[in-house]
Amino acid sequence: MQILDFLAVMVYFALICAYLHSNLGEHDRHMDPQPLYLRLANHYRRAIQAGVLAPAQRMPSVRTLVRTHHVSLSTALQACRQLEDDGLIEARPRSGYFVLKPRRSSIPPVGEPDIRQTLGAAQYVGIHDRVSDFVAKCEAHPVSANFALAAAVPEAYPMEALKQAMTRALRQSPQVLVSSVPPQGHPELRTVLARRALANGINATPDDVIVTHGCIEALNLALRAVARPGDTIAVESPAYFGLLQVLESLGMRALEIPTSPQHGLSIEALDLAFQTHGNIRAVVVVPNFQNPLGCVMPEAEKARLVALCERQQVPLIEDDTYGALTDDDTPLPAAKSWDATGNVIYCSSMHKTLAPGMRLGWLIGGRWKARIAMLKFAQSRPNEPLAQIAVAEFMGSRAYDRHLSRLRRHLKAQRDQTAETIAAHFPPGTRLSVPQGGMLLWVEMPGGRSGMDVFETALREGIRVAPGSMFSNGTRYDHFLRISCGQRTTPDITQALQTLARIVAERPKK
Amino acid sequence: MQILDFLAVMVYFALICAYLHSNLGEHDRHMDPQPLYLRLANHYRRAIQAGVLAPAQRMPSVRTLVRTHHVSLSTALQACRQLEDDGLIEARPRSGYFVLKPRRSSIPPVGEPDIRQTLGAAQYVGIHDRVSDFVAKCEAHPVSANFALAAAVPEAYPMEALKQAMTRALRQSPQVLVSSVPPQGHPELRTVLARRALANGINATPDDVIVTHGCIEALNLALRAVARPGDTIAVESPAYFGLLQVLESLGMRALEIPTSPQHGLSIEALDLAFQTHGNIRAVVVVPNFQNPLGCVMPEAEKARLVALCERQQVPLIEDDTYGALTDDDTPLPAAKSWDATGNVIYCSSMHKTLAPGMRLGWLIGGRWKARIAMLKFAQSRPNEPLAQIAVAEFMGSRAYDRHLSRLRRHLKAQRDQTAETIAAHFPPGTRLSVPQGGMLLWVEMPGGRSGMDVFETALREGIRVAPGSMFSNGTRYDHFLRISCGQRTTPDITQALQTLARIVAERPKK
Repeated sequence: MQILDFLAVMVYFALICAYLHSNLGEHDRHMDPQPLYLRLANHYRRAIQAGVLAPAQRMPSVRTLVRTHHVSLSTALQACRQLEDDGLIEARPRSGYFVLKPRRSSIPPVGEPDIRQTLGAAQYVGIHDRVSDFVAKCEAHPVSANFALAAAVPEAYPMEALKQAMTRALRQSPQVLVSSVPPQGHPELRTVLARRALANGINATPDDVIVTHGCIEALNLALRAVARPGDTIAVESPAYFGLLQVLESLGMRALEIPTSPQHGLSIEALDLAFQTHGNIRAVVVVPNFQNPLGCVMPEAEKARLVALCERQQVPLIEDDTYGALTDDDTPLPAAKSWDATGNVIYCSSMHKTLAPGMRLGWLIGGRWKARIAMLKFAQSRPNEPLAQIAVAEFMGSRAYDRHLSRLRRHLKAQRDQTAETIAAHFPPGTRLSVPQGGMLLWVEMPGGRSGMDVFETALREGIRVAPGSMFSNGTRYDHFLRISCGQRTTPDITQALQTLARIVAERPKK
Repeated sequence: MQILDFLAVMVYFALICAYLHSNLGEHDRHMDPQPLYLRLANHYRRAIQAGVLAPAQRMPSVRTLVRTHHVSLSTALQACRQLEDDGLIEARPRSGYFVLKPRRSSIPPVGEPDIRQTLGAAQYVGIHDRVSDFVAKCEAHPVSANFALAAAVPEAYPMEALKQAMTRALRQSPQVLVSSVPPQGHPELRTVLARRALANGINATPDDVIVTHGCIEALNLALRAVARPGDTIAVESPAYFGLLQVLESLGMRALEIPTSPQHGLSIEALDLAFQTHGNIRAVVVVPNFQNPLGCVMPEAEKARLVALCERQQVPLIEDDTYGALTDDDTPLPAAKSWDATGNVIYCSSMHKTLAPGMRLGWLIGGRWKARIAMLKFAQSRPNEPLAQIAVAEFMGSRAYDRHLSRLRRHLKAQRDQTAETIAAHFPPGTRLSVPQGGMLLWVEMPGGRSGMDVFETALREGIRVAPGSMFSNGTRYDHFLRISCGQRTTPDITQALQTLARIVAERPKK
């Protein structure tokens, strides 16, 4: 049996080698090739994911890898350990590595929405009270496991490199703290951002870029530029509660559009909404790793969305906060990349990807550039330059690519482990879509279990989780939880997830 | 003659000594007493300003100062030099120091407004176009003398100390760039700000303080908390163009209230406005060193203003950006200090006083505290903590008081020299009020000379100045200029002022 398996592997292996060879060549064109062990691991990963290496099959031995790929023993070992860390293979004592069966086969994905459903009237959002209630309750309890915070642990960010870049910036620009600030943001950072955006298919000049206080300020400015209080804004359903808060604070109405947990905003549903609600003034969308769903809009859908909004003459506001956190190192195109007329306002952030404590974001304003620049000046003046200089230096270097690769691997491992624990311990009927990037899991609980009830019970055990009711103005997601995978998985964190599972399985007290 | 003068001086001197003595005692109660030479200089300054020492009289000799005050020769000399620098006395060869006649007696102050004038309807501001036009024109010309920028030169701020504080903060809080940010601002900074506000008569807890991106964000949040688009806001006339821009960007209407160049907002005119315009939703006022007038509201007027707004149930928004820049080191009370009900929202900034490049401001929200905290969270999230930690350290130390003293002296010297040059060179009929603090001069040109025309002509000579039309929605100040005294006076700057004087004196081309 083992010999047959081994022979089969060797056949596949020959095929993979050719494939791998061409792919290695492709990598050479990239600015920042991955370390060799990662390239090796990634290509075996693809073979496993494509079924070329099937579950329970044995991986080529480490020695075979060394011989065939002309790599060192340590590179081959590192590649195997990477695949093991990623949960794709396991080591069996004295037998080598074996391919694992894909995990989470036991947990179905979250259901698709009915895109023909009659939409509720566009509503003035009432989310502040929910969020305030959430925050107040959180603060009333000590926390030991935080699944509510959508950020990785501090150690996952390039703390030391940023510190050094800040110190250098202080030394090299001694007057920076006491001089007037340049408009629209520091020129070097705007240049780096415009250059980086090329990889997402966006063609922008540094002059198009406005640096903001996080993506949240970018969204505020974009909305204020194109809409007024009382106007209706189409948003995904569910939507990031921060966006709902922005709408509420600006006195705008949210029209929640059905959104697939797999493919994102339904273009059909949006088209219908344009027909039934004549007064939509803007569409806000998170096409890449939507918060809370984690879904990515397929490229064709992004193109259709941009075309539809352009046809309707309704501005499209794109929030790409999570786009860089894709599992493989291939950049995701922004919806903005299909924008030929300036109808898309692109907003992004360094908050999740680089430095949660620096509060930097940015936007490309399209045809509203001048109005947004004016609003930014009137709202908070240009950002202070020091952090921008430091971040420009770091994001302009390959160290940023290396950091992103590490962060992506960290998040993928965390996400897979968290999903695995949920699949193993949450009650039957739980549904979960596991995204290919980002840090968020959207969990549907069986039996209409109340997210608020779970949240409150979990809090008393020191566990924080975001109840689904925070992600909509309605009651549609009351039996959902958003679970963030930013924390490092430790036995305590796994234990906390199991406690959460027990709470979810409890019958609510009446 | 000289002997008689000398005797007279000695008599006054005895009186002054008693006065000085009691005042020195008073200083001991302060946390950070001034250097002895400054205390000596300040008290002779008061004697001169009060007429106790009259113009052309001889100062007590340096030796007399040494003997009488039990100070060292160097302290006495420093005190005299300080008074000389301040333009209060002059040294005559072999005769000692003599009191100078008050300068600028040749230039009359700016006239008082008619407080019974019929107010225009509250208007939607159209200032963006003026400001954009101003900025675009400025950028089209190289600048050699900038009288438009309301900030002191970088060297007037504690560059090195702030740099060191930032470096220390980075070292002591290594995770600060990559961790989540604390709500409302860093606790240490909020504590220092609450403590410092005591000197301005404000009683606030750290929990009352919200750190913002400059005073401009504080004003945005305050206005958004109490008013809505379409609402009418009473403002001073003239008013800071930044405030007019904020109102325009928020879709609010400005109602310009007559304001005295000497005593600030006219309470009578505001009271009348409440009677004739029933829909005023807020009053925004800069009681200390108003921009552009430079005036300070007398304490009794501040008290009346607070009481009037309270009686009318209209929130009062106070902008105290310049308050700390008073010529003598005595803190000015805020209007907020008369607020017993939380009806005053106090906004301030470190932008002019400490670090133009750090973009830090703060507010105390009074009874709108919770709503403002929510709006701040929805608009830009809490400020990044690093700069706050550094500024908390600096502002919590005596180094901050020493810096403020230096900055105040610098600004006073600049202001006096600039005013002197204007008095000497601007055409007859020019009017000018010289404030007792801050960095701004408000100049009325004779013959209805157009500020815009002067601005444009001066630009071509590399000189920037702010035309009066930027400070109102109407045409009332078209023949004014705002001249900032932030630049260090060099022969080039003096020459530029003389060039400006020539341009002002020109007959406009038709």
